[in-house]
Amino acid sequence: MSQKIYVFDTTLRDGEQVPGCQLTTDEKVMIAKQLEKLGVDIIEAGFPISSPGDFKSVMEVSKAVTEPTVCALSRAVKGDIEAAAEALKFAKRPRIHTGIGASDIHIKHKFNSTREQIIEQAVSAVKHAKKFVEDVEFYAEDSGRANLEFLAKLTDEVIKAGATVVNLPDTTGYVLPNEMFERISYIMNNVPNIDKAIISMHNHNDLGLATANTIAGIQAGARQVEVTINGIGERAGNTSLEEIAMILKVHKLGYHTNIESTLLSPLSLLVSQTMRMPVQANKAIVGRNAFAHSSGIHQDGFLKHTENYEIMSPQEVGVDKSSIVLTARSGRHALKHRLEILGFKLEKPELDYIYNRFLDLADRIKEVNDKDLVILMKEAVSV
Amino acid sequence: MSQKIYVFDTTLRDGEQVPGCQLTTDEKVMIAKQLEKLGVDIIEAGFPISSPGDFKSVMEVSKAVTEPTVCALSRAVKGDIEAAAEALKFAKRPRIHTGIGASDIHIKHKFNSTREQIIEQAVSAVKHAKKFVEDVEFYAEDSGRANLEFLAKLTDEVIKAGATVVNLPDTTGYVLPNEMFERISYIMNNVPNIDKAIISMHNHNDLGLATANTIAGIQAGARQVEVTINGIGERAGNTSLEEIAMILKVHKLGYHTNIESTLLSPLSLLVSQTMRMPVQANKAIVGRNAFAHSSGIHQDGFLKHTENYEIMSPQEVGVDKSSIVLTARSGRHALKHRLEILGFKLEKPELDYIYNRFLDLADRIKEVNDKDLVILMKEAVSV
Repeated sequence: MSQKIYVFDTTLRDGEQVPGCQLTTDEKVMIAKQLEKLGVDIIEAGFPISSPGDFKSVMEVSKAVTEPTVCALSRAVKGDIEAAAEALKFAKRPRIHTGIGASDIHIKHKFNSTREQIIEQAVSAVKHAKKFVEDVEFYAEDSGRANLEFLAKLTDEVIKAGATVVNLPDTTGYVLPNEMFERISYIMNNVPNIDKAIISMHNHNDLGLATANTIAGIQAGARQVEVTINGIGERAGNTSLEEIAMILKVHKLGYHTNIESTLLSPLSLLVSQTMRMPVQANKAIVGRNAFAHSSGIHQDGFLKHTENYEIMSPQEVGVDKSSIVLTARSGRHALKHRLEILGFKLEKPELDYIYNRFLDLADRIKEVNDKDLVILMKEAVSV
Repeated sequence: MSQKIYVFDTTLRDGEQVPGCQLTTDEKVMIAKQLEKLGVDIIEAGFPISSPGDFKSVMEVSKAVTEPTVCALSRAVKGDIEAAAEALKFAKRPRIHTGIGASDIHIKHKFNSTREQIIEQAVSAVKHAKKFVEDVEFYAEDSGRANLEFLAKLTDEVIKAGATVVNLPDTTGYVLPNEMFERISYIMNNVPNIDKAIISMHNHNDLGLATANTIAGIQAGARQVEVTINGIGERAGNTSLEEIAMILKVHKLGYHTNIESTLLSPLSLLVSQTMRMPVQANKAIVGRNAFAHSSGIHQDGFLKHTENYEIMSPQEVGVDKSSIVLTARSGRHALKHRLEILGFKLEKPELDYIYNRFLDLADRIKEVNDKDLVILMKEAVSV
């Protein structure tokens, strides 16, 4: 009876476009493979028209992963869509993500357009994308501030044109959770073709409400969530993948994702290291202190009964305080096994290469923990 | 018609108890004075029974501020309450915050008690505290997981015993926003004496929902919010003061606070520096990137019309990119003026002392910006 929520990860697109977070193609491929192990359903790998680097990354990610859909971003313009299609040509499950502004503020001040022209451009973009791929997602930018009647009409028209997913983003991070519930409920009830597509949430965190808005959207009928590891992204960032995954796991709301939660902590560390974006100690789920009990009152209660202060265990999200520490005397097999727990599956000759780097490290620092291993894997790709 | 929401800041108590965040009494006093300028209504300054240092800090904060209520924490035990009362003896507006666990998990596993005994202990703690101060706040720990009927009964009894505020914390950060709305609504509708006290929200952020839960609590009838600067605190932290203040400012929901929002950014920096707790770049409101527009699409839209991507201006929260940079040639008056904008009001001889340190710094780094000034002020207290 539990309903599947599709996890659309945009760490490599919305996350990566932040100043200082740029990745090489090799780094993107490495993270994409880890996202596949984590169990995300869709990987948004880039915005191909924006740069040759982004184009190449989408192409290489397409070759590197098998299970997840690979998605490429485009504006509602022919050139963008064609670049996206070309970059996706090796993807087993390609998706083009195209769209345009939907709020009157965007329609007027960004596009100098009208509601009618926007619908026309949206429909023709979706139809154009459908010439290349079956799976077309449409985004109605700044949906959070859009007129609802117009948004319902736009949603219906793009579904008629062939959109399989309609993304209604809160681009400016403005909406309150109860409003989000009402807005998505309105769309679910006022779009004749609503059963022919999936509604997606893509919420920004400017007021600290992205996670709550995404959950409210799910409760109203959305079945896809657009998220990033550590909540990175434009300005105050996107919805955190780890928060949504754990809310749906801890609360029995009748929804499930395919996320393997024990990989959340290693992947958080990998993204933070690769993108040079430190995670604050008090970040939910993946912060250094997220499972630390410090006050006397809490420590006492916690020691009496774990459940007094813990609604989930650190082990569930991959924080294993009693994890085996490796040393220079650890063999290839021990290293391979520990890396597998962290989500890295290596075969010869990759394992030989990493093992040699591991021995160098172990000689220097004596004890190698999980964090050191993630950094080792990251550095092996970066050099 | 707009209703006042009381801002109860617990940066110096719940925030400060985190490992590595400990402050000296002088640092606590400095932050308390800045919280007063920010306009918080209540400052929770410490937990006097827990250590001589905490006792002293509550006493010195009590002497240092005039406008805000100063609050001290205690368990529902006589010795705790008496220590709190003693530490508060110089406060113009003293409040004792006392309480006990309210969920069955806490009652059974932490207190090895029964619901009846808990009510008895709660009532006698409130009555004892009333012997020393008029303003007594009661906390029902782990309210988020408590039986609602029992919680209503407990709330009613402590109000009858004299509690002026009843704090119903989500101690483990478990509740969902729609549930919080329903839970607080239940309390508002099922406590006969509810009009004789204020209901307070104190929500932890384990699932990333603290801010949303606090807003839901307000919408259901809570009129006090317990928050910290930068959301610091136990595990994944508390509700962020800056997020609540800006949500209530940006959304016209019929509530207001007394917060001077232009001091949010300087105070975030001061707390981060003093507590050695870096704020992540994508933290809402106060993160380094919170107002940075990076992607090509966004930059273009932003340049066409600010409102396309901004629901509030950086200036509103004290981020002033065109702020005057001071140099070694800047005079005392210019320094005094700039520090006042950042919330620091200095008189001779303090100004002379800071001016000399400023000249040393300006000689070294040439250009002194707002961030440098906040660090300068912090260091002047730390040495």
